Amino acid sequence: MPELDEHTPVLQLNRFDQLRHFLTIDGLSCQHLTDILDTADTFIEVGSRSIKKVPLLRGKTVANLFFEASTRTRTTFELAAKRLSADVLNINISTSATSKGESLSDMLQNLEAMAVDMFVVRHAQSGAPHFIAESVTPRVSVINAGDGRHAHPTQAMLDMLTIRQHKGQFNGLTVAIVGDILHSRVARSQIRALNVLGAREVRVIAPDTLLPVDVESFGVKVFNDMSQGLEGVDVVIMLRLQKERMEGALLPSESEFFRLYGLSEKKLKLAKPDAIVMHPGPINRGVEIDSAVADGPQSVILNEVTNGIAVRMAVLSMAMSGQIAELAADEEVI
Amino acid sequence: MPELDEHTPVLQLNRFDQLRHFLTIDGLSCQHLTDILDTADTFIEVGSRSIKKVPLLRGKTVANLFFEASTRTRTTFELAAKRLSADVLNINISTSATSKGESLSDMLQNLEAMAVDMFVVRHAQSGAPHFIAESVTPRVSVINAGDGRHAHPTQAMLDMLTIRQHKGQFNGLTVAIVGDILHSRVARSQIRALNVLGAREVRVIAPDTLLPVDVESFGVKVFNDMSQGLEGVDVVIMLRLQKERMEGALLPSESEFFRLYGLSEKKLKLAKPDAIVMHPGPINRGVEIDSAVADGPQSVILNEVTNGIAVRMAVLSMAMSGQIAELAADEEVI
Amino acid sequence: MPELDEHTPVLQLNRFDQLRHFLTIDGLSCQHLTDILDTADTFIEVGSRSIKKVPLLRGKTVANLFFEASTRTRTTFELAAKRLSADVLNINISTSATSKGESLSDMLQNLEAMAVDMFVVRHAQSGAPHFIAESVTPRVSVINAGDGRHAHPTQAMLDMLTIRQHKGQFNGLTVAIVGDILHSRVARSQIRALNVLGAREVRVIAPDTLLPVDVESFGVKVFNDMSQGLEGVDVVIMLRLQKERMEGALLPSESEFFRLYGLSEKKLKLAKPDAIVMHPGPINRGVEIDSAVADGPQSVILNEVTNGIAVRMAVLSMAMSGQIAELAADEEVI
Repeated sequence: MPELDEHTPVLQLNRFDQLRHFLTIDGLSCQHLTDILDTADTFIEVGSRSIKKVPLLRGKTVANLFFEASTRTRTTFELAAKRLSADVLNINISTSATSKGESLSDMLQNLEAMAVDMFVVRHAQSGAPHFIAESVTPRVSVINAGDGRHAHPTQAMLDMLTIRQHKGQFNGLTVAIVGDILHSRVARSQIRALNVLGAREVRVIAPDTLLPVDVESFGVKVFNDMSQGLEGVDVVIMLRLQKERMEGALLPSESEFFRLYGLSEKKLKLAKPDAIVMHPGPINRGVEIDSAVADGPQSVILNEVTNGIAVRMAVLSMAMSGQIAELAADEEVI
Repeated sequence: MPELDEHTPVLQLNRFDQLRHFLTIDGLSCQHLTDILDTADTFIEVGSRSIKKVPLLRGKTVANLFFEASTRTRTTFELAAKRLSADVLNINISTSATSKGESLSDMLQNLEAMAVDMFVVRHAQSGAPHFIAESVTPRVSVINAGDGRHAHPTQAMLDMLTIRQHKGQFNGLTVAIVGDILHSRVARSQIRALNVLGAREVRVIAPDTLLPVDVESFGVKVFNDMSQGLEGVDVVIMLRLQKERMEGALLPSESEFFRLYGLSEKKLKLAKPDAIVMHPGPINRGVEIDSAVADGPQSVILNEVTNGIAVRMAVLSMAMSGQIAELAADEEVI
Repeated sequence: MPELDEHTPVLQLNRFDQLRHFLTIDGLSCQHLTDILDTADTFIEVGSRSIKKVPLLRGKTVANLFFEASTRTRTTFELAAKRLSADVLNINISTSATSKGESLSDMLQNLEAMAVDMFVVRHAQSGAPHFIAESVTPRVSVINAGDGRHAHPTQAMLDMLTIRQHKGQFNGLTVAIVGDILHSRVARSQIRALNVLGAREVRVIAPDTLLPVDVESFGVKVFNDMSQGLEGVDVVIMLRLQKERMEGALLPSESEFFRLYGLSEKKLKLAKPDAIVMHPGPINRGVEIDSAVADGPQSVILNEVTNGIAVRMAVLSMAMSGQIAELAADEEVI
């Protein structure tokens, strides 16, 4: 999606180089990503408090616009917004006026007119959040909660937070991403974030049918074979297998897939002894990952979930700050 | 619906002549409507604040009872209630106990017993909110969010607020309402409000098939022809065309309808140069209104949306005050 | 369900003998139940205040996990949690990731990782809330909102609160429960609570086809005939008839059922003159209860609804306190 990401830096940063939308990892610097991780760290502490609430977004309205259903991601954004004291609107797109023939653009302009401050957007179409961010007024920030095969930047950042917690830094790390790279917006965002943050080597492990044609241009080393690809890695990221793909003839049977690309305890032994195992969830146990590994001592899968709330709190509050700073600067100019 | 509105004044006002339910424009005086507009004006300012919240309904519970689906109206009531700091319950009627054979009346008594303070009611049946207001305890206020073909009073009041913002006053104004008057609760409430507030002339423009038989008794001047009806008006209100009507043989094709009753830039030139264009939304672009007009300099369609939140905040808080004043007076009597 | 309830006392109480989950009446002492009723009494007052909110659960997150739809019970838990100032997540199970093949256990672990503090669980399977309570971390409390035919303890406690309000005490009371005992989790919990709280006699009145085989072991006196069973009782509790049962050949027609086991004014005369009439709702008027009785002076059905909010506030806040006390004690040990 290079044409999509070309102008994004301008779009998602304000004049002070602060986050103002959060659409993609592309175009963000190591410092930008590190700022997000550092801010998320402060919210980790909030989650363990007795009163898990801070007033940063009090009186702000966050609308969850999920054009593609996802209870899990929607729930984490809802919780993140509520713990920042925002009011949350869940708009069920399928029953809303768009189904009465209203255009998407009219619906968004209406939400702007209701003084909604942030749109959290998930869409099956790559680029939809960019399109929305380009068209909104200066009083709205857009957060990408996953668009088509393009990007899932908050998922990538929660993964980065999890890696930093367990490994201290990115320098010198070798990370393997295993599974359906072709259809994965998660993988695209992870690869970019790992490269920007300075990982030593990012590997992808998949059959050729599940790799994008231009995958090497992403800055990865490609492996078709798990035993070679897992050799000596610090981090193993398993992707969720969309079972629908099975029928598309891109894949052999589930059991065959597990034999070749599933993560078992035996295969995990090829990685470093202190390697961590990650998965964005929900898990298909016995398809891409063995239960013994998912629930084992090297798994940090549930840490990722906890970090998901903190990263989303960070991104929501930072984009809101960036919006406010930009508005204030606009007013001074006038 | 004259039989319906005959007793409403008694029903929707308390002994101090204050709003206590909000069911219809009928029976309200110019002063009542002006009070609503003035109160809404104060909430416009709240919507532009950094913290868009006031504690007027803190600790109160507002239940949205939408027997007819409407994401847009439900959302604006939900936002209005939340910005007044109320707790909001969205009751999905189709899945609630009424589908298990519980009577409507039992469901409402249950909500009363849960100490819900306000019911926001939308219903396909004309008069449903009146029926409910007649049966509730003194501890509940009912707000009509649209009933059948009868009334949509908050929509009418947000339109009045928008007109007053742009025209300063109602005296001397000529307002044209264009489209499907026959099926429009919005038009009925607008006509009444405009007459009470002192507009000079209210016109309706529609084919005879889309006009109620007794339309002249509403206090309007009837036009079948747009070029005559728009001549010299200050305000043009376009109604939404329910596309379902097309099939009912009440209407020719969409393109034919647009040719005759759609608002184009050319037709708009017949109105005063500073005329404003309104529409309750959602818009059918190219059916009842041209995009160039909907997005043009005379359109105040998005202002209507913003004003919708303010008017609903006004009505919710005023009806709650009216309820409290009445309860206090009841107690003194005892 | 004796095997289910054997270990529950250990499960639902913390080391200080305080409620920490609320799964069943079984294993709780008269003192435990009285504590719940006394706490609920204090919340009755909150419901009648102008600001119906207390900050007891501020910054806590309560997730409603309704695997079986129930707008009414879900609404009362949602209101109870909001009036305690908690954040509430309604998880629609049918559309959540469990339908994408995620296991229940993975879904719950994810919610724990999001720092959700309480799960309110309704499930068609008897024992599901127990199963969940056994598997959660020490940072989650589980409240049973009805499981299969097993238990509905908050319903039983709101009924006990209603009886105590009207009768002052349980000593010396004769209570009749009428209808489909066989399928009723409500009846099971009521019978247990009445016996623990010291009612003189608990009667069940039903045809043999609607009685569990071991019903006498519950500590009740069995009647097949209403005129004998209602003789001299202080409290009549009517159960909701699941109309689906009719087709299962367990029952004659609705009118035949009403003739034999419905509560009419005439039959009610057999009870004490000051007997109260209860029903968990929603009511099937004319099937298990006559409208004249349901709306009559002896009916306390709507009081039950009001008490339902207070009891749920009590149970939520007590279980949260029990959780916190246990966590604090755990930390001291370490």
